[in-house]
Amino acid sequence: MKKVYKANILYTKERTGFEVVENGYIAVENGRVAGVASNLKALGCEDAEVTDFGNCLLIPAMNDMHVHAPQVHNQGVAMDLELLPWLQNYTFPEESKYASVEYAERMYRRFLHTQWLFGTMRSVVFGTIHTESTRRLMKLYQEAGMGALVGKVAMNRNCPPELCEDVEASVAGTEQLIQEFGGADGLVRPIITPRFVPSCTPELLKACGELANKYHLPVQSHLSENISEIAWVAELEPESRSYGDAYNRYGLFGQTPTIMAHCVWTKGEELELMKRNGVMVAHCPTSNFNLSSGLAPVRTMLDESLPIGLGSDISGGHDLNMFRMLVYAIQVSKMHYMHDHSKKFLSLSEIFWIATKSAGSFFGKVGSFEPGYEFDALVIDDDVLHPSEYSLLHRLERFIYLGDDRQIIHRFCRGQEIAEPEND
Amino acid sequence: MKKVYKANILYTKERTGFEVVENGYIAVENGRVAGVASNLKALGCEDAEVTDFGNCLLIPAMNDMHVHAPQVHNQGVAMDLELLPWLQNYTFPEESKYASVEYAERMYRRFLHTQWLFGTMRSVVFGTIHTESTRRLMKLYQEAGMGALVGKVAMNRNCPPELCEDVEASVAGTEQLIQEFGGADGLVRPIITPRFVPSCTPELLKACGELANKYHLPVQSHLSENISEIAWVAELEPESRSYGDAYNRYGLFGQTPTIMAHCVWTKGEELELMKRNGVMVAHCPTSNFNLSSGLAPVRTMLDESLPIGLGSDISGGHDLNMFRMLVYAIQVSKMHYMHDHSKKFLSLSEIFWIATKSAGSFFGKVGSFEPGYEFDALVIDDDVLHPSEYSLLHRLERFIYLGDDRQIIHRFCRGQEIAEPEND
Repeated sequence: MKKVYKANILYTKERTGFEVVENGYIAVENGRVAGVASNLKALGCEDAEVTDFGNCLLIPAMNDMHVHAPQVHNQGVAMDLELLPWLQNYTFPEESKYASVEYAERMYRRFLHTQWLFGTMRSVVFGTIHTESTRRLMKLYQEAGMGALVGKVAMNRNCPPELCEDVEASVAGTEQLIQEFGGADGLVRPIITPRFVPSCTPELLKACGELANKYHLPVQSHLSENISEIAWVAELEPESRSYGDAYNRYGLFGQTPTIMAHCVWTKGEELELMKRNGVMVAHCPTSNFNLSSGLAPVRTMLDESLPIGLGSDISGGHDLNMFRMLVYAIQVSKMHYMHDHSKKFLSLSEIFWIATKSAGSFFGKVGSFEPGYEFDALVIDDDVLHPSEYSLLHRLERFIYLGDDRQIIHRFCRGQEIAEPEND
Repeated sequence: MKKVYKANILYTKERTGFEVVENGYIAVENGRVAGVASNLKALGCEDAEVTDFGNCLLIPAMNDMHVHAPQVHNQGVAMDLELLPWLQNYTFPEESKYASVEYAERMYRRFLHTQWLFGTMRSVVFGTIHTESTRRLMKLYQEAGMGALVGKVAMNRNCPPELCEDVEASVAGTEQLIQEFGGADGLVRPIITPRFVPSCTPELLKACGELANKYHLPVQSHLSENISEIAWVAELEPESRSYGDAYNRYGLFGQTPTIMAHCVWTKGEELELMKRNGVMVAHCPTSNFNLSSGLAPVRTMLDESLPIGLGSDISGGHDLNMFRMLVYAIQVSKMHYMHDHSKKFLSLSEIFWIATKSAGSFFGKVGSFEPGYEFDALVIDDDVLHPSEYSLLHRLERFIYLGDDRQIIHRFCRGQEIAEPEND
């Protein structure tokens, strides 16, 4: 049964520009886009019942490609601490609390509700080492109808004892989640999640790679975020030719679909390896600014055709609103442009394409309104932003720069309208 | 007649830390703070009627030290254009529209309403060359009860003909506004506003300096925002030892209270001159990021004891929410820290002090709750941010990083509660 929606439709096919259909129609069948057209006849839906969103904008939903759900409580806290005391006093103590399923459920509801508010319909998520708490997060996503790849975190060195888990327990916990959520077409699926090389012994990295291979599951981790981290990895993994190669040697770098957060300092052999293996970058611009560890060279990544998406990275990032991430990503690219005018800063269509279609490719056909794409969409009522005075593209730009959750009035994931999830 | 308010009170005396009075009381008399204490007895107000704001935060209001009111329509538009086409296609055509008082009034209502929403109670504002439109803006501020120094812009070269005004007309228009709004203690007063050296002939700069001196009025302009601008000024004013010296030679650089926007590249003699003359910097961090013209060295300015405040600089900046400006200013300082760890990034108390007490000094005793300070204040109901789980300082930090206008439930300027002004 086809559903047809009418609105001002904006999306990207290519990064070079927007597709804009003023007062357009979009047909959705079995959760996927059947077509977009400026009239019902061209859509082949002349008799369809139309849900009319009037003068609203209809755009692809947001994808958050790197986020630590258990850091929701630390959002916007102690942002003027240095990295090390911040990890020791805030990050690790907070994650330890997720041993309590009750605490986890309360915070994860808060997290999910905020994602819903801001129209983030797909996420790639770090949980904690705690299997049951991670399971609860996955159930919450399922109940909400929102898409997510969720990782029970693997870590067994260089962290507080209560966040260390031995290899067998880590594997057993992950396999438990795979049994329950491993279906290939599920909206909510496990993702193999070694925290990062310094947190994982070679045995644990090896076990993670074997799990990814055995169940053909995707992989996420952190890569080349700051200089001292890279030096540390070189010490820990002297046989690896680069930080990325350390993951690669354990089957965690594109052997299955892989996304790596940050990649601020990725270049040379590591960059070539990422390209060859099709590893996606989760660029986290607010986190780049807040942690002052470096600014990811997004223009270079685009020029090199690296797949790329955007991540909020709370609580290194402070904001779960992915539209703010688009603004910050443009600003990061402008910092590179400032130093080197050959590195043109990102255009609005480029960053929108990155955040929607490019990022969405990690979930399948997600992030665009081309035929066959899953219908993940937001309806934006920008009445407060004086829409009558602006072109559709400027209306979208103003919503991205100035808007907030109040303007998002409908949210769809895989064709279903997503109701407000229960908050904590 | 004293008024007493009860709330969790936070403000700064020094940049090194906050004054925090949990469930404290503040007494206000004749628009000024009489005292802050943890109980009524210590305040000497045992019989006073208390307005109780419960668990809310009470903080000094925001001051926007550099903003182009007539750019409100361009907020968040065409942010991916280069500077020159952006000025030619958006900035100047928009300002030309302010020849219409009707258009100006409509847009200025929108502008003022947005400032009110975000709790900005004092501003240093660029209008346009149009006397009557600028007068309307000043009247709107007066009607609202919000404080502002408003400049009719002086410009007569290197701009479209419809934005050029000859020296006599410029002086006459400014004097007209001085007659009406020149009272020394007024909340809304004129400020002498040469746009910047490239827009003003020596004759116009001279006339501006004479006006400032004759009426002892403050001065605002732009200084050392980007490299090519500085080179241009050096060409136009070959006798000046620096860009700042060009203003100085015309009596526009601290001879009366002076604030200069940006100062990204200020150093050496220009920096010494600013220090000697007590010229304040209006640091505009979002604008620094959006225009990629450079990042103001705020730590250096603090170390050198330059007076400093924050500006939104719309529409080079995209946001009128000054709390976002605090976040961006910290991030700008982190970009300096990234390259040079001896330049410690700004702490929360430092940036809060800059935005409130330091900026506020341009208006008199504004921006703190010390006795004698004008009571400019905001009441923040952060219930949605889970206040029970955080310290008062973290509550403030979370509101700054994550909050928006919905949490600002009362606004005071000079002791008066400011009602919502009529929107356009």
